[in-house]
Formats: sequence, C-alpha cells, structure tokens
Amino acid sequence: MPTVTEILAQKGSHVIALSPTDSVLTAAELMNEQDIGGIVVMADGRLVGIFTERDILRRVVARRLDPAATPLAEVMTSPVLCCAPGTSIDECAALMTARHVRHLPIGGPDGLAGMISIRDLLAYQVHDQQDTIQYMQSYIYDTR
Amino acid sequence: MPTVTEILAQKGSHVIALSPTDSVLTAAELMNEQDIGGIVVMADGRLVGIFTERDILRRVVARRLDPAATPLAEVMTSPVLCCAPGTSIDECAALMTARHVRHLPIGGPDGLAGMISIRDLLAYQVHDQQDTIQYMQSYIYDTR
Repeated sequence: MPTVTEILAQKGSHVIALSPTDSVLTAAELMNEQDIGGIVVMADGRLVGIFTERDILRRVVARRLDPAATPLAEVMTSPVLCCAPGTSIDECAALMTARHVRHLPIGGPDGLAGMISIRDLLAYQVHDQQDTIQYMQSYIYDTR
Repeated sequence: MPTVTEILAQKGSHVIALSPTDSVLTAAELMNEQDIGGIVVMADGRLVGIFTERDILRRVVARRLDPAATPLAEVMTSPVLCCAPGTSIDECAALMTARHVRHLPIGGPDGLAGMISIRDLLAYQVHDQQDTIQYMQSYIYDTR
C-alpha cells in the first residue's frame, strides 16, 4: 500500500516554517512569494502550529485584526494534526476529510519530513489509479 | 466522456455572488460563514469577476489594504476564466492546471450554472476511476 513517503519523494521535503512571534504579514508575504497555501510554525525545533490561507480568512480578515500587529501565536491552529511518513495515502486522505484539514505536516523521527495537501493526495490517487487501469487494460488485452 | 454537469448534479448549482462595490470584509465574512474558498462577482446579472482566498492573501493582506475599505472591484480577478456545462472533466482539469486556477465558474445559456474547484474535479476523477477499476476487476474475475 503506497504511503505519504512516495508523495514526499516527488514533492520534496522542504517545509516553510516561521516562529510564533512572526507576524501574519510576514507569513502572508512568504506564502505569496513561495506560492503556497500554508506554513508551519516551529519553536525550539518543535512543531507548535500551522497557519494557512483559511486561517487568514477566518481569524485575521473576518475578525478585522491588523496583519502587521498580529503574531502567528494568536491565530495559528494548534495543536497540529500530523502523520508519520509510513502512513498510507488512503488513511491520510480519510483523516484529512474527517478533520476538514487541507494541509498535513509529516513528522519523522528527526523532525519534520515534509507537508502534503489534500490536492497532493488526490493528484497522487488519480495518477496511481491511471496506472492500475492501464495495467488491467493490457492484462485484459493479453488474455483475450 | 463525463462533463462538469455531472459534478454540478452532485454538488448543486448554488453560487455565492456579491457585487463589485461590496467590500473585501463582506466577502471574507460570507466565505467564512459558508465555508467556501471563493465567490463570484456579478454586475447587472453578468459575471464580472471572481474573488478567492488566494486573492485575499496576495492582493489584500500582503499589500496591506484595509478589508473594510477595499471594494471587490479593486482586488477581484477579472476577466474570469469560465467553462460551459458541456466541457469534459479532463478538459476542465487541464485548463485549471495550465492557468493555475482553483475555482472555475460554469456558465450556461441562462447565466451561471455553478462553480467547481480543482478539488471537486480530482475527487470526481478518483471516484470515477475506482468504478472503472472495480468493473475491470470483476471482468477479469469473470473471464478467468
């Protein structure tokens, strides 16, 4: 059964991290520059939160907070739902759907191993199933 | 070949719309309430723009604009890329990937017929392929 490690092998394990005292404005500028929808928040080498586009909408703009004056600690999601690299793709997809999260940090024994989004999972499933279908088609063709 | 009409049949054709003079704050509150990532902007019954979470990040927060004082007309994406209901799912997915858009309004002869996201498309593809795989599995089993 394929695991999230296979997605990280394609996507890379680079994760953008900020500290809880960094401002929402800093996070927004970084997410914008890197064209990503979420970052992790780390303190003393530990994962303490996650901050995404949805948090900007819900907890900053809709609450009329000033992005330059609001530290991530006030508006990040904490504690963070995360998965081990050996978790199967199906299990991760079920977890993200059940908990309504779109970004899932992947934690290894030596800290963060990467971050995957629900879109990464779905795109992986589409490609994986395409391979299965192709394989079955040639099997059916060969045995006719 | 399945078309976006099949996704809209499951998802419904309800689309949240605001006018170009409504503020970013109004849009953020509405998106928050409805738990959606994007709305369309209509003027005189015509689709004139689209406004999404990504636009809030890029064009409002990162540019330090005041959400209560910024009308959607200033920060929406316009003109809007959209598709006819008869467009195939594969074509829509290719278009959204090529143009880097996550939300695609679907326009019918009588105006807007709905809105689909890249996640809707991927989720549809995963289910559709699961059906194909199951069908092929029983075919292989039956002909062994």
